[in-house]
Amino acid sequence: MADPRFFDRAGPFRLDALAALSGARLSRAEDGARSINDAAPLETAGPADISFFENRKYLDAFLRCRAGAVFVDEAAAAVAPAGVALLVSKEPYKAYALAAQAFYPEPPVLPGRAASAAIAAGALIPEDCRIGPFVVVGPGVRLGRRCRIEANSVIGAGVELGDDCRIAANVTLSHCLLGARVVVHPGARIGQAGFGFAPDPSRPVKIPQLGRVVIGDDVQIGANTTIDRGSGRDTVIGAGSMIDNLVQIGHNVELGRGCILCGQVGISGSTRLGDFVMIGGQGGLAGHLDIGRGARIAAKSGIMRDVAAGAVVCGSPAVPIGEFMRQTAMLQRLARKKVR
Amino acid sequence: MADPRFFDRAGPFRLDALAALSGARLSRAEDGARSINDAAPLETAGPADISFFENRKYLDAFLRCRAGAVFVDEAAAAVAPAGVALLVSKEPYKAYALAAQAFYPEPPVLPGRAASAAIAAGALIPEDCRIGPFVVVGPGVRLGRRCRIEANSVIGAGVELGDDCRIAANVTLSHCLLGARVVVHPGARIGQAGFGFAPDPSRPVKIPQLGRVVIGDDVQIGANTTIDRGSGRDTVIGAGSMIDNLVQIGHNVELGRGCILCGQVGISGSTRLGDFVMIGGQGGLAGHLDIGRGARIAAKSGIMRDVAAGAVVCGSPAVPIGEFMRQTAMLQRLARKKVR
Amino acid sequence: MADPRFFDRAGPFRLDALAALSGARLSRAEDGARSINDAAPLETAGPADISFFENRKYLDAFLRCRAGAVFVDEAAAAVAPAGVALLVSKEPYKAYALAAQAFYPEPPVLPGRAASAAIAAGALIPEDCRIGPFVVVGPGVRLGRRCRIEANSVIGAGVELGDDCRIAANVTLSHCLLGARVVVHPGARIGQAGFGFAPDPSRPVKIPQLGRVVIGDDVQIGANTTIDRGSGRDTVIGAGSMIDNLVQIGHNVELGRGCILCGQVGISGSTRLGDFVMIGGQGGLAGHLDIGRGARIAAKSGIMRDVAAGAVVCGSPAVPIGEFMRQTAMLQRLARKKVR
Repeated sequence: MADPRFFDRAGPFRLDALAALSGARLSRAEDGARSINDAAPLETAGPADISFFENRKYLDAFLRCRAGAVFVDEAAAAVAPAGVALLVSKEPYKAYALAAQAFYPEPPVLPGRAASAAIAAGALIPEDCRIGPFVVVGPGVRLGRRCRIEANSVIGAGVELGDDCRIAANVTLSHCLLGARVVVHPGARIGQAGFGFAPDPSRPVKIPQLGRVVIGDDVQIGANTTIDRGSGRDTVIGAGSMIDNLVQIGHNVELGRGCILCGQVGISGSTRLGDFVMIGGQGGLAGHLDIGRGARIAAKSGIMRDVAAGAVVCGSPAVPIGEFMRQTAMLQRLARKKVR
Repeated sequence: MADPRFFDRAGPFRLDALAALSGARLSRAEDGARSINDAAPLETAGPADISFFENRKYLDAFLRCRAGAVFVDEAAAAVAPAGVALLVSKEPYKAYALAAQAFYPEPPVLPGRAASAAIAAGALIPEDCRIGPFVVVGPGVRLGRRCRIEANSVIGAGVELGDDCRIAANVTLSHCLLGARVVVHPGARIGQAGFGFAPDPSRPVKIPQLGRVVIGDDVQIGANTTIDRGSGRDTVIGAGSMIDNLVQIGHNVELGRGCILCGQVGISGSTRLGDFVMIGGQGGLAGHLDIGRGARIAAKSGIMRDVAAGAVVCGSPAVPIGEFMRQTAMLQRLARKKVR
Repeated sequence: MADPRFFDRAGPFRLDALAALSGARLSRAEDGARSINDAAPLETAGPADISFFENRKYLDAFLRCRAGAVFVDEAAAAVAPAGVALLVSKEPYKAYALAAQAFYPEPPVLPGRAASAAIAAGALIPEDCRIGPFVVVGPGVRLGRRCRIEANSVIGAGVELGDDCRIAANVTLSHCLLGARVVVHPGARIGQAGFGFAPDPSRPVKIPQLGRVVIGDDVQIGANTTIDRGSGRDTVIGAGSMIDNLVQIGHNVELGRGCILCGQVGISGSTRLGDFVMIGGQGGLAGHLDIGRGARIAAKSGIMRDVAAGAVVCGSPAVPIGEFMRQTAMLQRLARKKVR
């Protein structure tokens, strides 16, 4: 079970209730009355726990598991160990996520303002928000309902947040507008001036950075990630985009809806991503590029040209994934041949 | 126009005044009396706005633009749309930067100290500095004139800043000496102990890190960038160097004047860069290297050997750019041939 | 000498005392009575200073050095300049580290709590700890003896620290348990929710992140590094591991004992490292991998498959180091031939 020092658990729940809320189907209806106490990973789940199996790397753990119930897909259901109740779903991981949310719901925001918070006169903060100790809120700030700002974060002048935003500790926001349900992890920096200057032999001439960062609903921004404001037009993060830790997003970058950026990705200024673009960890994109809807860029790739919608690319400079595989195989073959 | 919640605009200015302050030449003298209200990007600029055109990727936007005036080079002037006043410059981007600075000058530092700031006895802080809420200033700190330290930043014991430094929120400075006009963006960490230890089977033996970080005038340091202090000699950042976000600079690294490090660059300990070295995003340099004056290192390159002055290198391991191009082309050709 | 604004020096010490504490052998016993005032790098060391020579890149500096004494290995002893006392060791760098620690011992923690710190009722903080200004300590926190928490750091509910931990400024800890003597550099983020969600066309479904971060004794964590808590099982950092700046460690990652992760390394979720694994700067590892004990992964490598114990790999995708060298050499040869 999750460590009670850190997590509060709800439940227990009947298995048919968990099936209903997750959209899964019980493989044996008679299991519906079983009582489940907790959600747990396969390796540690016991008879009163529910778990999931999707990544085939963990087949052994599945075959040996002692869980009371497991979310599986049709194929996995056929090889399940005896005695385990099965909840069949096309998307076992997502179904498990919904069940786990039932056991561990996001705690509600407890209204209140730390006496130590430095809140500018005229900032609009609804009564149901929570403002932590040593938080600084600048003039003209407007928060939505039920926002939570954790300790030592700084919300610069004029910033606006939609409802139900959760800003973790030690975050800095400036020159930005956030939609609803935006989650910002600790240490993220949003809205600072971008890397804009004209080279000069005496000293660089800075370009005033006059845009904002505009963030859609349901966006998540990882720890210590940095998002610079636009230089003239805005930097835009589309609704539902998920951004991992230590990601760098330059000025004027635009992300469509539902983009996924893994850890340490870097996107240079003025590059635009369509909806549902995915970029693997440490991927890097040059500036002023267009990345088409649904494109997938493998981890560590270096992108120097536009990428077409739906393309899957890899390498640095990146090429279509099949070509990357052939390049790699050929290189290995040639190098090995050389030795003999 | 820039969002007035975040930016205060000066002006309007006559076009001949903007030409004069930016060193550009009006292509038609009679445009000099036109009044310009704002600076704006090409796509959104209207008849009372000034813009610029330099990157040929945006030719379409230039040809369709509705700006009142545009900074251009000679070649672009020849194809400009009718009705747009032209300010001709060899460096249109730099000229625009100067005009934009006129419309949006850096706001002056408003003197004052937040009552909540924790300032050690004996720290020398001129009356014209601004110290934000929850700032911590250690003993022996000396600030120059007109410095601004924003909320929740921590200035460790003995740190010295030159005049007109601007330290953003949530920054940590220790064991460092800053020149004049240094700008540090939010979350940067300067002066902590570097990664110095001798391996040992029981536990690593730490080497005391006894140097400092010495930063020249007019340096800019990006958000969440980390610069470790020297282990014995100092880590040195030359005057006018521009460092982007999430850059890692190890102990004893030395940058010459006017170096440009793009986002997520990493430089290992004791490597030295001459003046005006440029490193593209996510470039990585091994330790104990010499990088010659004016060398240019492409994005994502991995540098394992010294780089000669003026060289342009690319790849990992990096080779001269022309050779990198040939390697890439050859690899693609071979891999494609293989398929047929 | 180290700048007295930042460092307090002990000593002087007799050379025989320094030899004894570092396990080195004086090449001439009669040097034992010499008095040494300070530890310094080769380039700047004077007649009253002790230094070291190990990396052959610095042979010139060694031959020209004016140090009073130098730690060297047997081979270097044979070419040492006249007049320099030699302390011979198999590991001159480690021996120097011990001597430097004698001159610059870690300052003891001065007990005390800043009046401004926000400490929850019921947090257990021994009297001999030091809590800086604007530190926030949540309910249920337990600190070991002699811990130091620097300014503006936030210790979330339920977090536990062993004895002698040093948490620098502007750090965020949550959902984590730290062993003894753990050092966390400024801006590190430990214990936030990992990048866990199931994709969905409407909006991503978040997986509650129910694990912790468990950190062993003598671990060092670099500035602005991020370590996510586990999703179900824990994220684990083995004792004695050294983690540099701006490193990203995903949920459920496990590091064995004595691992070394250089700057900007990224490790994706659920990957496990055995003991004493080393990863060079900017190395990236995909998720769900097993990296065997003592494996060494070169800087900038991209790891997509398991790595065997003791293997040394390089490249992206990584191959054994010898193969990488041959690939590189062959590619350069082919590309050069092409031109002629």
